[in-house]
Amino acid sequence: MTKRIKYDPDNIFAKILRGDMPCVKICEDDDILAFMDIFPQSKGHSLVIPKRAKATMIFDIDPDELSGLTLGVQKVAKAIDKALEPDGVRIVQFNGSESGQTIFHIHFHIIPVYAGAPVRPHAGGAPADTAVLTEIAAKIAAAL
Amino acid sequence: MTKRIKYDPDNIFAKILRGDMPCVKICEDDDILAFMDIFPQSKGHSLVIPKRAKATMIFDIDPDELSGLTLGVQKVAKAIDKALEPDGVRIVQFNGSESGQTIFHIHFHIIPVYAGAPVRPHAGGAPADTAVLTEIAAKIAAAL
Repeated sequence: MTKRIKYDPDNIFAKILRGDMPCVKICEDDDILAFMDIFPQSKGHSLVIPKRAKATMIFDIDPDELSGLTLGVQKVAKAIDKALEPDGVRIVQFNGSESGQTIFHIHFHIIPVYAGAPVRPHAGGAPADTAVLTEIAAKIAAAL
Repeated sequence: MTKRIKYDPDNIFAKILRGDMPCVKICEDDDILAFMDIFPQSKGHSLVIPKRAKATMIFDIDPDELSGLTLGVQKVAKAIDKALEPDGVRIVQFNGSESGQTIFHIHFHIIPVYAGAPVRPHAGGAPADTAVLTEIAAKIAAAL
């Protein structure tokens, strides 16, 4: 069984939600916060996280919270598709370190895919330039 | 923008839902059908599809249908995690050929990850043995 991790209120996403760490925000509503992944696997790689759920993985999130989270993912995926004109969009959600999860606050990745441009590895390389991410986030937000 | 595909009522998953093609079923409810991927990327690789939605991608599925679908994914992911004892679980959903989508009836992949066993490429190789898949599906169903 995937090793369960106790929810740590000081994980990076909890800090972002409290305003104790910065993020390049796309949008938020009562249920979710959407922001740019700072290690983007492609242009427009975004994350959607629940605001209230203290859940680490899909195994421990309340079904209602999961529904709200998924609808946020749909909304942002549509905006990314409209704003950035990729050739496809991948939705990915990791559970457990072995699967690729690095931050233990449940989250969905939205990864636009562009013809001829391979998707880069997960959570690798140097962080993206904040100014560039801010411009992309504004484009996505305008397409919501 | 991801190229939209008109919903084809003769796609493989529509045929499976009508009973015109076989599948190795895990479970179904009013909203979803869960069954084994015949090209498993790992032991227990499963698919969850909506039963009523005539949707090809996350862009064109009704939000209520998406909620029902996601709750099915959660239920089956928990059962896979309990039954097969992987070290992690990946949830993946492709939109558009360029992203890796091959069947244009919206679906979620649930891919268990095992330490030391790399996940195989998507939709490749030879189909798995039905008897083996049937045994795995029964184990998952028993853990629901």
